[in-house]
Formats: sequence, C-alpha cells, structure tokens
Amino acid sequence: LDDDFSTVDLSIALVHYPVLNKNGETIASAVTNLDLHDLARSAKTYGVKTFYVATPLVDQQQLARKIIGHWTEGYGKTYNPDRRDALELIKVVDYVADAVDDVCNRCSQVPETVVTSARKTDRSIGFERFRGILRDGKPYLLLFGTAWGISEEMIRQADWFLEPIYGTTAYNHLSVRAASAIILDRLLGRKNGG
Amino acid sequence: LDDDFSTVDLSIALVHYPVLNKNGETIASAVTNLDLHDLARSAKTYGVKTFYVATPLVDQQQLARKIIGHWTEGYGKTYNPDRRDALELIKVVDYVADAVDDVCNRCSQVPETVVTSARKTDRSIGFERFRGILRDGKPYLLLFGTAWGISEEMIRQADWFLEPIYGTTAYNHLSVRAASAIILDRLLGRKNGG
Repeated sequence: LDDDFSTVDLSIALVHYPVLNKNGETIASAVTNLDLHDLARSAKTYGVKTFYVATPLVDQQQLARKIIGHWTEGYGKTYNPDRRDALELIKVVDYVADAVDDVCNRCSQVPETVVTSARKTDRSIGFERFRGILRDGKPYLLLFGTAWGISEEMIRQADWFLEPIYGTTAYNHLSVRAASAIILDRLLGRKNGG
Repeated sequence: LDDDFSTVDLSIALVHYPVLNKNGETIASAVTNLDLHDLARSAKTYGVKTFYVATPLVDQQQLARKIIGHWTEGYGKTYNPDRRDALELIKVVDYVADAVDDVCNRCSQVPETVVTSARKTDRSIGFERFRGILRDGKPYLLLFGTAWGISEEMIRQADWFLEPIYGTTAYNHLSVRAASAIILDRLLGRKNGG
C-alpha cells in the first residue's frame, strides 16, 4: 500500500556547518529560531524520528537549546503543547557524523545519508522512487543545508542524491523551511487523504 | 500532459484579517518578515501570478512595503536579485476582496477563491482533482491564513475547500510557510523531473 509508512525510519538534520556563503566559501551559519520551529513542526507531521540541529559553534548550540527549552520546559510547555511536541524531536549535535552516531545508537544500524541538490546529476534519484526505497526498514538521515547550501564535499559523501524540486518555472530559490516541507511531503505525504 | 501548466492562472493571498487567535477570537495579525520572503520565493518557484499580502492595518502595510522596498529598490535589489524577483510578486491590499478586484482588473474575470481547512468537510476536494481543475483557464485565488487560521466566516464564503494536508501522523500544526509550500507543490509541482 502506498500509504503504509510503518517501516519508515527517517531522521533529518539541519546542517549549519559545512555550508556555503554567497561567495561559495565554506562557513558555519547561525541558528535561526524559525528554522527550528518550522522544521520541527514539519518533522512531527511526517513522523520523523529525530530532528538533528548540527552546529559546532558553542554559542549557537546554546541558542538552539534556549529556544527548545523555552517551549519544552516550564511555562511554554503548558502554554503551547503543540510546539512542545514538535520541539521535543530536536537534538543538538556538533556535526552530521554525530547525528549518524546517534541513529546507530538508537537502532544499531548505520543510517544512509540523503541530500537534495539544486543540480541534477547522474546519481540523482527521483522522489517517487525514493519514496518506495524508504520503506525498506533501514534508517535514513535526510540532510538540509542552511545559508547557500551544504558544501560540495559533504554532498559528495552522501549515499543518496534526491533530484531537485521542480516547480513550474526556472526559479529555484526555495527557503529551507519550504523546501524541507515539500521534500517530506513528496516522500511521506498521504496521497489518498486521511 | 500532467506537467503542462500553461493555462494556470493562480494567485495567492496571505490573510492577516480576519484570522483567529489562540482563543478563537477574530483578530488582525502582524505581518512577519519571513512569511513574506518564504511565500514570495515559493510563489515565484511555482509560477504564481501575484502574491497578495492582505492587512487593513496601516502600520502593518507600511512594514510590508518597507520589507519589499528594501529588496526591490536601491542596494538590496542588486545585492540579491533572487530576492527581488520573488518580492516583486507582492501586492499589499487591505482585504481579500481587494485582491479579488485586482485579479478582475488584470484578466477581466472574477477569480474563484480557494481555502485549505484543517478539517475535512463534505465540500472538500482532493489535491489531485483540484490540480486538474486548475488548468481550466479560469483565475483562482488561494488563501492562506496566519495566526490560528482564517475565520470560519471567510472559509464558508470560499468557492473551493481543499482537503487538509495529511502527513503520516495525527499532528496537524504546519507553519504557514511549510503548508503553503506543500500546497503549491501538490497543485503545481512537476512530478516527472525537469
């Protein structure tokens, strides 16, 4: 059945390093409040196991933990339980490698890493096909880049390359909040209503 | 052909009034910088004709115009042309009725209004079916609510009700930035790659 996702073990990571800046240089980007909220809510909607926020910068880790803590402890926790349920999915880690380790620790399998690239390559796989592959019971870790995207080296190291998201135009500058939502929906959205 | 969108005339409106607050009361919500950027970029990606920002509050209209102006005039325009191309789609209007009028003025046809509701009703239509209907050459205006969603009265006045977005869980609290991206992709995304 196309809408049976019971065997899916998908986690996501929002990568703040290594990413590119406007000039194509590798940088560590800043954590954004709304990225955490939006991706957590999308992750919760689509049954994602864990949402890793990957940044090696200590002050950015502290900022991320402060945002999460605000909604998962004390007053915020009771004021808005929906936000709590979403933000509880987040784990702050230094690097993508630490997210991989954490998935290993949870399910004793090394997750396969998946990136979306703005460019189609020989190795790109379509969303429809990957939607099927995701059901094979193995853990997968989907990487989303911040700033101007994940560095080429990290992209090359990934196990899977999803094809770009095509709209109806040549314009290809979706926000990470929009792109991640679309990708989760293409991979895990119920097509036949609820 | 499923991927032929040449006859589609779709506009979107981000509704700041009348929307609901946490307690179900009708309010006018504040304009958010990132809503404008994200929805404009998604709109540009999916070939949306105009992105209306509807708020009757003069200070909020000024804020919206300031954000748009920053990226479509002077320094911002040349610093980041991608943002300019997206934000140029925005028109600030008082009410949804003014957005309807503006579409009329452009194409001499009254657009049909479309809402997404978190609840499925007898009148709800599936995304797949509406994807086909959208090709009929008529103008459509898709309404997205801010805060806790568009007021019941405005929902009832709409011509079309899209079914809710179903993920894989019962959690149903996507951000408007994520939900609007998913809806545009379901209605207009190219399924067969580019």
